[in-house]
Amino acid sequence: MAAASVIVAIDWGTTRMRAWLLDAEGAAHAEHRSDEGLTTAQTVGFEPILQRCLAALRAPDDVPVIICGMAGARQGWIEAPYVDVPSSIAAILRGAVRVPHAGRDIRIVPGLACRSLDAPDVMRGEETQLAGAKLETAGRHVVCMPGTHSKWVIVDSGAVETFRTWPTGELFALLSGHSILRHSIGEQPDAVSTENPVFARACEIALADGGDFASRLFSIRAGSLLHGLTPEDAAARLSGLMIGSEVASARRQFLHADASVTLVASGTLATLYRRVFEIAELEVRAIDADTAVRIGLFEAARQNEMIQGVPA
Amino acid sequence: MAAASVIVAIDWGTTRMRAWLLDAEGAAHAEHRSDEGLTTAQTVGFEPILQRCLAALRAPDDVPVIICGMAGARQGWIEAPYVDVPSSIAAILRGAVRVPHAGRDIRIVPGLACRSLDAPDVMRGEETQLAGAKLETAGRHVVCMPGTHSKWVIVDSGAVETFRTWPTGELFALLSGHSILRHSIGEQPDAVSTENPVFARACEIALADGGDFASRLFSIRAGSLLHGLTPEDAAARLSGLMIGSEVASARRQFLHADASVTLVASGTLATLYRRVFEIAELEVRAIDADTAVRIGLFEAARQNEMIQGVPA
Repeated sequence: MAAASVIVAIDWGTTRMRAWLLDAEGAAHAEHRSDEGLTTAQTVGFEPILQRCLAALRAPDDVPVIICGMAGARQGWIEAPYVDVPSSIAAILRGAVRVPHAGRDIRIVPGLACRSLDAPDVMRGEETQLAGAKLETAGRHVVCMPGTHSKWVIVDSGAVETFRTWPTGELFALLSGHSILRHSIGEQPDAVSTENPVFARACEIALADGGDFASRLFSIRAGSLLHGLTPEDAAARLSGLMIGSEVASARRQFLHADASVTLVASGTLATLYRRVFEIAELEVRAIDADTAVRIGLFEAARQNEMIQGVPA
Repeated sequence: MAAASVIVAIDWGTTRMRAWLLDAEGAAHAEHRSDEGLTTAQTVGFEPILQRCLAALRAPDDVPVIICGMAGARQGWIEAPYVDVPSSIAAILRGAVRVPHAGRDIRIVPGLACRSLDAPDVMRGEETQLAGAKLETAGRHVVCMPGTHSKWVIVDSGAVETFRTWPTGELFALLSGHSILRHSIGEQPDAVSTENPVFARACEIALADGGDFASRLFSIRAGSLLHGLTPEDAAARLSGLMIGSEVASARRQFLHADASVTLVASGTLATLYRRVFEIAELEVRAIDADTAVRIGLFEAARQNEMIQGVPA
């Protein structure tokens, strides 16, 4: 007989949601993915989307729900106010806010805020991936979480010390789709191979420039005018330039000479970033982001004593 | 009696054209501006736009026409192939290409190409502004020409040695209008005052970061969420950050410790860049861009022996 389901875990982002039905060991018995992110929920409501999700997962009526991500934003279901850094990861998870709701325990994990006057920053969702990365409590860790808005986080002795956002994914999308570079890159900007030597060369250049990439962008346009740069190579050059610049900038700001990086990523992004870290000669410990958020949500449920028979 | 008109000078860019009727001293007797740039000309044709322009200027039938800018691109009226750098400014102007045309001498000044394999670059139009900046022939000059695609040019002993593009204006437009920062910046991104201390502070930060601005962008979003940053201040922060980064990056790549900069700019851009150079403690010689292109076009006509009675 299968172990009983004890919690529904949902990563509810801006454009999509992913949900799992978990047992007391944190193992997934069912999974549900949809495009009903915050943007959709603002129109049709969070409640009906959750009900569809619970039905798809065949979740029992009394099973509680733990949520992370944009559902806890001010414009979300209910605001889960930011926890200020520095804060221990356990304390962040324990800050989960209860959604007023009849008949079911639903809570949302708060995001994090860095209130520095010159470099304020926020995150929602990545704090839960971080909890699921299961970093050793001792020592200092530099964690890279790539995406539309890549987050780099310093964790020291089990606490988030500070973090910073590089909007690399958004810059890549804007530049490849809406800038003059779109004429060079064509319709398949995301089909970049790490085997392409143009990607590696752009990375090397970016790593040497310490994060200063603006003066390299127009070379993609000029490359297609003067050297017949193909759309595929143009996309590879932009991708190598942007990810290489992020790593160069974060290394300059966050990494000590001997430090290694924990990479929390999935799919293509994981492949691209691993290759850039290899070129940068940085030691990497790679963790799957989808797994990390699931483990982090389970940990949040446990910390909030939402799971019967599993102590906090 | 007014001096006779001897040449029509046209700066024909992507989105607009500016034309002057000049006498043998280079003085303007009439001016015409319109939005009939390359984009319009590709649909309605260059010839009818030129005829309207000549009529507006009341140009005599036999007066020759000298043109610079995107009209000479491959997709323009007739291609004026790029001149490779290094090249003397006089040689660039003398490369003007004749438009096959009945009854009138019409020529287009070529653009410049830097064929470096890692940093290829091109310009069209700025080479003529450069000619009109009347730099001293002796010595090395660093010239900053801000815009959608800012050009920084090294001129040594009367020759363009190399140049590079920073797409600062395009990045500012994309970020303020199409990125997540649009929620913070609002509808008036261009109304930035150099008197705003937020502009100056963002400049200082950018100048210290050497051109690495990506990790500062999200602070504008977080600033409005955490510190109530106003739309006006958000625009000022982005503007200071972007122009400060361009200057920091170009200084790192092009400027010797003791160098000064020649700024070729008009209007708001001139004001913003002058302020950034002041904050960066760089010595600046400012030249009006509109005047420079007119003088450069006159010089191109002279070099190509298009002006009767004025030797090359």
